[in-house]
Amino acid sequence: MAAHKVGIIGASGFTGAELLRLLAGHPGLDVVVATGDSQAGVRVGELYPSLAVAYGDLAYRAWTPGLADELGLDVVFLGLPHGTSQPLVAEVHDGQRLVVDLGADFRLKDPALYPRWYGAEHTIPALLGEAVYGLPELFREELAGARLIATPGCYVTTATLALAPLLAAGLVEPTGIVVDAASGVSGAGRPPKPTNTFNAVDENFEAYGLLTHRHTPEIEQNLSHVAGAAAQVLFTPHLAPMNRGILATCYARPTGPVTTEGLRAVLREAYASEPFVAVTDAPPSTKATLGSNAVHVSAVADERTGWVVALAALDNLTKGASGGAVQAANVALGYDEATGLTAAGLYP
Amino acid sequence: MAAHKVGIIGASGFTGAELLRLLAGHPGLDVVVATGDSQAGVRVGELYPSLAVAYGDLAYRAWTPGLADELGLDVVFLGLPHGTSQPLVAEVHDGQRLVVDLGADFRLKDPALYPRWYGAEHTIPALLGEAVYGLPELFREELAGARLIATPGCYVTTATLALAPLLAAGLVEPTGIVVDAASGVSGAGRPPKPTNTFNAVDENFEAYGLLTHRHTPEIEQNLSHVAGAAAQVLFTPHLAPMNRGILATCYARPTGPVTTEGLRAVLREAYASEPFVAVTDAPPSTKATLGSNAVHVSAVADERTGWVVALAALDNLTKGASGGAVQAANVALGYDEATGLTAAGLYP
Amino acid sequence: MAAHKVGIIGASGFTGAELLRLLAGHPGLDVVVATGDSQAGVRVGELYPSLAVAYGDLAYRAWTPGLADELGLDVVFLGLPHGTSQPLVAEVHDGQRLVVDLGADFRLKDPALYPRWYGAEHTIPALLGEAVYGLPELFREELAGARLIATPGCYVTTATLALAPLLAAGLVEPTGIVVDAASGVSGAGRPPKPTNTFNAVDENFEAYGLLTHRHTPEIEQNLSHVAGAAAQVLFTPHLAPMNRGILATCYARPTGPVTTEGLRAVLREAYASEPFVAVTDAPPSTKATLGSNAVHVSAVADERTGWVVALAALDNLTKGASGGAVQAANVALGYDEATGLTAAGLYP
Amino acid sequence: MAAHKVGIIGASGFTGAELLRLLAGHPGLDVVVATGDSQAGVRVGELYPSLAVAYGDLAYRAWTPGLADELGLDVVFLGLPHGTSQPLVAEVHDGQRLVVDLGADFRLKDPALYPRWYGAEHTIPALLGEAVYGLPELFREELAGARLIATPGCYVTTATLALAPLLAAGLVEPTGIVVDAASGVSGAGRPPKPTNTFNAVDENFEAYGLLTHRHTPEIEQNLSHVAGAAAQVLFTPHLAPMNRGILATCYARPTGPVTTEGLRAVLREAYASEPFVAVTDAPPSTKATLGSNAVHVSAVADERTGWVVALAALDNLTKGASGGAVQAANVALGYDEATGLTAAGLYP
Repeated sequence: MAAHKVGIIGASGFTGAELLRLLAGHPGLDVVVATGDSQAGVRVGELYPSLAVAYGDLAYRAWTPGLADELGLDVVFLGLPHGTSQPLVAEVHDGQRLVVDLGADFRLKDPALYPRWYGAEHTIPALLGEAVYGLPELFREELAGARLIATPGCYVTTATLALAPLLAAGLVEPTGIVVDAASGVSGAGRPPKPTNTFNAVDENFEAYGLLTHRHTPEIEQNLSHVAGAAAQVLFTPHLAPMNRGILATCYARPTGPVTTEGLRAVLREAYASEPFVAVTDAPPSTKATLGSNAVHVSAVADERTGWVVALAALDNLTKGASGGAVQAANVALGYDEATGLTAAGLYP
Repeated sequence: MAAHKVGIIGASGFTGAELLRLLAGHPGLDVVVATGDSQAGVRVGELYPSLAVAYGDLAYRAWTPGLADELGLDVVFLGLPHGTSQPLVAEVHDGQRLVVDLGADFRLKDPALYPRWYGAEHTIPALLGEAVYGLPELFREELAGARLIATPGCYVTTATLALAPLLAAGLVEPTGIVVDAASGVSGAGRPPKPTNTFNAVDENFEAYGLLTHRHTPEIEQNLSHVAGAAAQVLFTPHLAPMNRGILATCYARPTGPVTTEGLRAVLREAYASEPFVAVTDAPPSTKATLGSNAVHVSAVADERTGWVVALAALDNLTKGASGGAVQAANVALGYDEATGLTAAGLYP
Repeated sequence: MAAHKVGIIGASGFTGAELLRLLAGHPGLDVVVATGDSQAGVRVGELYPSLAVAYGDLAYRAWTPGLADELGLDVVFLGLPHGTSQPLVAEVHDGQRLVVDLGADFRLKDPALYPRWYGAEHTIPALLGEAVYGLPELFREELAGARLIATPGCYVTTATLALAPLLAAGLVEPTGIVVDAASGVSGAGRPPKPTNTFNAVDENFEAYGLLTHRHTPEIEQNLSHVAGAAAQVLFTPHLAPMNRGILATCYARPTGPVTTEGLRAVLREAYASEPFVAVTDAPPSTKATLGSNAVHVSAVADERTGWVVALAALDNLTKGASGGAVQAANVALGYDEATGLTAAGLYP
Repeated sequence: MAAHKVGIIGASGFTGAELLRLLAGHPGLDVVVATGDSQAGVRVGELYPSLAVAYGDLAYRAWTPGLADELGLDVVFLGLPHGTSQPLVAEVHDGQRLVVDLGADFRLKDPALYPRWYGAEHTIPALLGEAVYGLPELFREELAGARLIATPGCYVTTATLALAPLLAAGLVEPTGIVVDAASGVSGAGRPPKPTNTFNAVDENFEAYGLLTHRHTPEIEQNLSHVAGAAAQVLFTPHLAPMNRGILATCYARPTGPVTTEGLRAVLREAYASEPFVAVTDAPPSTKATLGSNAVHVSAVADERTGWVVALAALDNLTKGASGGAVQAANVALGYDEATGLTAAGLYP
């Protein structure tokens, strides 16, 4: 297969930088342009010294209308803040080229959820139906040949992979679910803020976004999909003093008698053929997934209190964002799904 | 008041070192002996360079029977592993001297819980009734004049202070509660283990002790006490890559209509006179309590899903262990409750 | 002694917050006002939750001319960026009130050094002679009764305490010295910047300010003072992924045969009566000084290569800034030098 | 080229785990056996969950004599403590198979240095001449076709790449050099020790191994080689609170007038064709190299004090150990030198 020409719009943020890191090792996807309006003219390796050797003289440029056609781009990734992807997707999505949005603009299927959770109407709701949700573990068939992919939110991938097989098997109730999760700081993005300085974060652990985090309806959408019934989730994110990684600890009520072994058997069967998912007996750790596309999943049943606890860990920037996007793109384009990705994490 | 002679048995562990740090600034409690069998002969400042200037030539010595009488100790703190406090408390507790156990041996009132959660019968159950639970916010009156104090577990203090006023007010159900908490690594103690090396912990977040953590029955004991009904709690601890600090995020079902403001009003009233408890609108952060005896507490009500979320943060070694022990000892001995303690945390 | 009324100008930065933390436990220094122009109206405990319990409703206010007289301030601390202290010191310094500047504006005695290292002429050079350099270990006598104190730079205190006794004893050459030091991130201050975000700093170690750091002439000033000859220093600061702490590793050429034991004997004699300095055989660690006013110092002589290595560690915000300022103020006001300070550091 | 069968002896330590991580993505090197006597029977993914997905059921086994022949190994890597490699290398080195030692046993050419720095005579000094020093930047020609490779020490690679071109060009004196370096904690290996627990290391910075670190003679050997004269180095390592990364800040005396630009021009020319070395204007940061085989190098000249400062940063486990070993093996076996390696580091 001849190499595909790739453009990354919004490549100066963390998901863009992670895409650049991954695509440096992808034999079929050649990055020919990286845009970043605020960084136009800056070399990639200047903003991200970690990419200095791999990308040499490549510099960010500003996006200009028509650029995708001009450069003959086969694939466009977008790493933009919510709301800003919509007009750009409308421009570059032509049914031929593969468009992969890493933002939130095409994740929710129900247009009514955008004003409620994101504060504004969706401007091109017609495309919501066409967008395929980029989670191969749930939508692999739909992704084959897709030309518009909505990459899931990082917390969403984590919670979904922990709970989906249990809901699909009818083992737990779809309502009354609590998702308690902790993320590394990179989830907050690159721009300096009072809340992401080293001195604010290091040696600190705290909850944020209580009751209002935007990944809530997206988790519910996925869980409803697999459960075949309206799921309801209380989601509490926390900030942990680390660069990367998400752990979701999920609490659900069993529909009937369950055992720890029974839960894990269902998880193992669901993920038996997955290239990146491990079902573990030990509680999943974020470090087991650092810098890789791996996901670790486990579950326990508590007879005493009548709760099921399902857990999943992954790297929020890799499997939780750019790695997941590459995996979905591989499926869409017909590459081996693991191309350019590794399941071997960085340790220690 | 003439100064009290203090002995610390088991002063080579982290709770012992924290006691030494705090008592270096306590005008009434003079440390005259610090024991640590495995460190006998080692200077305190050699094992803990942070105490080198404050403790000069003080060296650990081995415990020998009769030492408390020999040295005329007025106060004995014990910082020993579970099970090992019992014979020592039996020896040093004479009804005159104040004995403060920082371990788990006298925390649970029901002797039947020891074999179940700690794997062995209690050897002196008669003393369980005499031991006062060292949480001034709940048992201040009982602590006045007490001569045997059981210092609460670190997670237990955190979860209890988050939930107790809500249960006491009948705002939430005592069963079906989930306590999801994260702790810094010092909770695991000083001895090196594969699970507490820097490379295992840094950049990692994971759950541990799923369903089986020994602080579970202790949380239930406290919550049952204030609720006047049997409380039931699923407790999931996590390890966060930081030295100190615990955050407990607690989920409970409201008994009727509640609002966030209503919950906080109850918390504010309950803690109005407390010298170390702040009720906050912002989610509590562990860093706000670092190195201090402060506790930050908050709560929210979620109409959408029908959950109450109550949160508390503290420093596991200070308020969660040695600071809480000093506070309780101050009450027992008639000192101002805040003597030797500070509410001003280390930041950044 | 009746309590002194204290004002902190520029109390919203890290040195201001550290002063507030320390003065919360100082029996003689009562903070009556804390200014912070950009934070006017914000409660101290809102900006620094760690101070919420200790400072209750105290809010930052804007500085207004005449405020010191209006409030009858006995002591004024200034925690302001370079250059901005000069006019304020000119206003509040009246020969009665104690003024303690934590900035760089009065540290260098030679006015010619300001344009060269700080880029602007000093506006009130007449006060440079009156300002006493706030390092009690070198200038204790001059500090007694002083009314204008210039608190040393954090790196400067560290390097000076490592090297001064060796130079004073004539054991090492005053030129050709290399000071290689690493600091925690709080040295960079509170405002968020691309270089102090968690993601930029965590898991990173790098040098900065190569050849140009402004603490260079100040180190040379101190070492020249004790050596009685012009000292010359190459100073390389590094940023370490931690909140607090400075370690200086200093390289100097011996003037004649020296031994490790000989070097340490000189250090021990020099610091024998110091309340906060420990001379150690083990290499000093920043963690031994965390949150305390302690300094750990050591030295070795290398026969093979003909170098002397002198090391010192301290907490950059405590002994390296606000703790050192309180210590100097104690001397100036006649308090016991250790009032409000501790030598017992936070560990772990 | 048909794939090579690879065995890793001592694969349970950090360098072994890093080799496994890298070789998971190497198309020509197939790991067929991983030994680890203390972990025999344990699955690789159990000890290192980061490798669970990539290595599935591969378990450590004990080394047994004759195993290399039995399994027909083409390549053997050894990740063993000093002294223990010698007998194993004697067994597996047959002149056909490639043997790559990651330990220190074959690094020093002069047998007299082993008793002095490592405390014991070398047992097979005849092989010292045959072993090629595995630093392609200095010995690429000798590595082609080599069958015994001694992988350099992590600090040694760092300091050598910073200084070698300057010495080779005669710009700095070979004696009087100071190498001041800081390393992440993984350099201390996997076994838990009081000095590598999270609580000992986090928020701490300290020097260790003053005057006696074993990488000293190895740095001198390399610098002498390029200078053509006996080099002498004082080396001071420090421990930084991070998992990976080394920064070396090196001080040397210029032989004549030099400028910062002149120094960098020499570095740029020396490394123009190197696939993994970047010469930067900004001070090198360890984070720029995290998880990659990249090295960042820079230098400045200080006219004022007459010093040259040369700096280099790399990942101690990748380029500083296992990545460097793979790079050297690629050269020896005729693979493209970058096979299985990336220059794109993990950020943030």
